[in-house]
Amino acid sequence: MENIIRQVESVKQASYQLISTDTDKKNRVIQNLIQFIDENREQILTENKKDIVKGEQEKLSPVLLKRLILDDNKINDMVEGLKDVLNLPDPAGKVLAKVSLDEGLILEKISVPLGVIGVIFESRPDALIQISSLCLKSGNAALLKGGKEALFTNQCLFGLIKKAITKSDAAFKGCLQLLESREEIKEMLKLNEYIDLIIPRGSNDLVRYIQKNTSIPVMGHADGICHVYIDDSADIEMALSVTEDAKCQYPAVCNALETLLVHEKVAEQFLPQLVEKFNGQVEIRGDQATQKIIHVIAATDADWKTEYTDLILSIRIVESMDQAIDHINTFSSHHTDSIVTDDKKKAEEFLSRIDSSSVMHNCSTRFADGFRYGFGAEVGVSTSKVHARGPVGLQGLMTYKYKVTGGGHIVSDYATGKKQFNHQDLI
Amino acid sequence: MENIIRQVESVKQASYQLISTDTDKKNRVIQNLIQFIDENREQILTENKKDIVKGEQEKLSPVLLKRLILDDNKINDMVEGLKDVLNLPDPAGKVLAKVSLDEGLILEKISVPLGVIGVIFESRPDALIQISSLCLKSGNAALLKGGKEALFTNQCLFGLIKKAITKSDAAFKGCLQLLESREEIKEMLKLNEYIDLIIPRGSNDLVRYIQKNTSIPVMGHADGICHVYIDDSADIEMALSVTEDAKCQYPAVCNALETLLVHEKVAEQFLPQLVEKFNGQVEIRGDQATQKIIHVIAATDADWKTEYTDLILSIRIVESMDQAIDHINTFSSHHTDSIVTDDKKKAEEFLSRIDSSSVMHNCSTRFADGFRYGFGAEVGVSTSKVHARGPVGLQGLMTYKYKVTGGGHIVSDYATGKKQFNHQDLI
Repeated sequence: MENIIRQVESVKQASYQLISTDTDKKNRVIQNLIQFIDENREQILTENKKDIVKGEQEKLSPVLLKRLILDDNKINDMVEGLKDVLNLPDPAGKVLAKVSLDEGLILEKISVPLGVIGVIFESRPDALIQISSLCLKSGNAALLKGGKEALFTNQCLFGLIKKAITKSDAAFKGCLQLLESREEIKEMLKLNEYIDLIIPRGSNDLVRYIQKNTSIPVMGHADGICHVYIDDSADIEMALSVTEDAKCQYPAVCNALETLLVHEKVAEQFLPQLVEKFNGQVEIRGDQATQKIIHVIAATDADWKTEYTDLILSIRIVESMDQAIDHINTFSSHHTDSIVTDDKKKAEEFLSRIDSSSVMHNCSTRFADGFRYGFGAEVGVSTSKVHARGPVGLQGLMTYKYKVTGGGHIVSDYATGKKQFNHQDLI
Repeated sequence: MENIIRQVESVKQASYQLISTDTDKKNRVIQNLIQFIDENREQILTENKKDIVKGEQEKLSPVLLKRLILDDNKINDMVEGLKDVLNLPDPAGKVLAKVSLDEGLILEKISVPLGVIGVIFESRPDALIQISSLCLKSGNAALLKGGKEALFTNQCLFGLIKKAITKSDAAFKGCLQLLESREEIKEMLKLNEYIDLIIPRGSNDLVRYIQKNTSIPVMGHADGICHVYIDDSADIEMALSVTEDAKCQYPAVCNALETLLVHEKVAEQFLPQLVEKFNGQVEIRGDQATQKIIHVIAATDADWKTEYTDLILSIRIVESMDQAIDHINTFSSHHTDSIVTDDKKKAEEFLSRIDSSSVMHNCSTRFADGFRYGFGAEVGVSTSKVHARGPVGLQGLMTYKYKVTGGGHIVSDYATGKKQFNHQDLI
C-alpha cells in the first residue's frame, strides 16, 4: 500500500500542474508521442513478441492473445488515433455559463479536468496509448493498471509516454504512472481521497468486480443486453434489416442485439422471414409462442438476462407495446433499445418510457457509439446515470468549477437587505 | 431486507411512470400539497409537539432540538418553499443537443430524471417536504429515510404527501416511500440496482459514513474547510470586510471561513486591524509567524484540517501565493476558497490552480449557495467532482438519454462505405 500511495501522491501533485496547463503544451506531448512511437516500431514489436511467446507458453485464451498481438498496421492505427486526439478541441477552460449576480459580482461556470483518473485495462496494449492521450489532452493525470499478459509491451509504450511528457515539460512528469502488480487493483479501489473516477476496460466480470468494490465513481458498463421491439405497425422489410444488422453486423460488442420482442399480430408473418434471412447462421431461442411459429430451442428465463456476444438470439412474443416496455425496463442493461414501427406516436411513447442510455426508433442498436454519435473520441460507454451516460467522449473526463469575481462583495449586505441580487444571464 | 426490497421495487415501478409524466400533473401534486399543509397546520404542530416532548425526555442536544421544532412561521416557510418549487421550470424533456448523423438519422440528447433517489436526513422535518417536492418536480421517485427524533412529524407530513400524490394520479402513488427504522440505512446503501443517487442531509459524520459505505453515487459534502487568502496586493479595507463576512456572518454553515492565509508582506499591517475588527468575538489560532504579530493561541497541524463551524479562526502566514495555493490544495475540502488581491493576473492564476468547486476573487466565501447563484432551489452542495459539483440546483436530480430516430438505417451501410456520416449540429 505504501508504494501505491507514494505513486498516487505524485500523480495528484502533477494533476495540480496539469489543471492550468495550456493547450499547446498538452498537444506537444501528444506530438512527441506520435514521433516516438513511429521511431520505435521495432522495439515495440520486439517487446510485444516477448508477451506473445509468454502468453502462448501460459496458454492464454485465443481471444486475449488476439487482442495482445501488435503488428505494423496496429501501430499505424495507434498513430492515427493519436493524430485524431491531437486535432480535438481542448475541452478545458470553456465558459459553460456566465451570470451577473449583482453589479460587479460575476459568476462563471468553467469546464475543468476531473483531476486523477484510475484506469484498469486488460490485454490490449493500444488501450494504454489511447487512454493516456485522452487524459493528457483533457488535462487529467492518471494511474494506469495494465494486465500482466501485456507487461513487456506496456512497459515499452509507457517508457515512450514518459519520454514524450518529460521532453515537453518536466513540471508534470509524474502525471501518468503505470502500476504493474495484480494486488494493486485492490489497493487502487480504496484511494478515494486521490482518485476522482475509475475507468475499467475489460471483461464484464472485471467491470462488475470494480463497480461492487469501490466507492470511487466508476464509468463503465458490465453488460450490454440490448433489445429490438418489432411493433404491429412495423414495416416488415425494415424490421428484418434492422434485426439482422443489430444481431449480425458485429455480435461481439455491447450494442449488439440480444433479445428480440415481436408483437403477436406480426409474429406469424415476420418470424419465418427472419429465419430465412438468418439462413442458419444464428441460433434462435424462443418463448412458447415463438415455438408455435418457428422451429427453435426453448428459451428459459435465464435467456432474458444473458448477453450472448455471439450469433445467438432470444425471441419473445408480446401482446402489446406496454408488455414490451415492461420486459425491457426489467431485463435490459439500460444500454440501448430500439423500436421498429411506422406509428410515430407509439415510437415517441416507447422512447420516452424506456429507461436506457440510448433509445432508438427505426434504426439499429449498433449506432450507439461515440464515433458514430460524432464525439470525435470514445472514452467509454456508461450505463451509470450520474456524470456521463451512454457513449462518452472527452466530456466524460471533465467536471466544472464556479468562479465568482467581485469588488469586495459581502453576503451581509444581501442578508440585511442593503443590496439585492439581480441574476442576469450574460451568455 | 425483504421489507425494504418490496418498498424499493414499488418505488422503481412508480419511477417508470414518473419518467414520462407531464409538467401539469407533477405540478398538481405540489399544489395539492400546499393546500393540505395549509389546512392541517394544527395536526402538524400537534404531532411535532410529541416529537419535542420525546426529544426533551431523551435529552436530545439543543442544536437538534432547535432544528426539530416547527411553528406557524416555519410552516409558512414550507408553503413558500413549495410555491417556489411549483414556479420553477420543469427540468425534464429539454433538448440539450440535436445532431444530424446522416440524412434522416437524427440524434437528440434529452434531459430526463435520474430515476430513484435515496434521501437520508436527520432532525429537520421541513427537509422532508422540500426534498420530496424537488423530486416530484423533476420526475424522480424517492426512498426517504428520516431521523427517529422526528418520527411523528415525518409520519404526519408524509401522510399529507401521499394524499397529495394519490389525489393527482394513482398511477404513481408508490413513487415516494418513507423508511422508519434505523437498520434500514445500512440496507439502503446496498440497493445499487434500484437507487441511482443518494443524498445525505445531516451531520458530517453521517455524510462521511454514507460516502464510505456504499458504491451508489453520493451527492453531498462532509466537511466545509474554506479559505481566504490575503495577497500582498490586497486592498486592506476589503480584506478586513471579506474576512469578517466569511467568518462571522453565519459561522455554522459549510461555506464559512475556517483558515485565513496572509501574505507575509501585509501581515503586520493587516492582522492587528483584524483583531480590532473581531473585537474579541472570534477565537484566533495562529502559526508561529502570526504569534509574533498578534496575541493568539498556537495553531497545531490539526487546525488546518478542522471545520470549526463556530467563531474560531486559524491563521497562517505564507511567503508567497504559491505557498497559499499549496496549503489550500492540501487542506481544503475543495468546497470554496477565495483570494483578496488587486492584482488581476495573480487572481486569475489562483482561480485556475485552486482545485475547489467554487473559487472566488474579492468576495466572501459565503456566496457559494444555490439561491445566491440563482439556481432557484438548492438540492445540496457537492464536493464530489462527478455528476454535480458545488451548489446544486434541480439539475442535480437529472441525467440525460440519447434518442436516435431513423428510417431503417443500419450500421452495415456505414461499415461497408456505402454511406457516410455527415455530423451536423441542428441546434
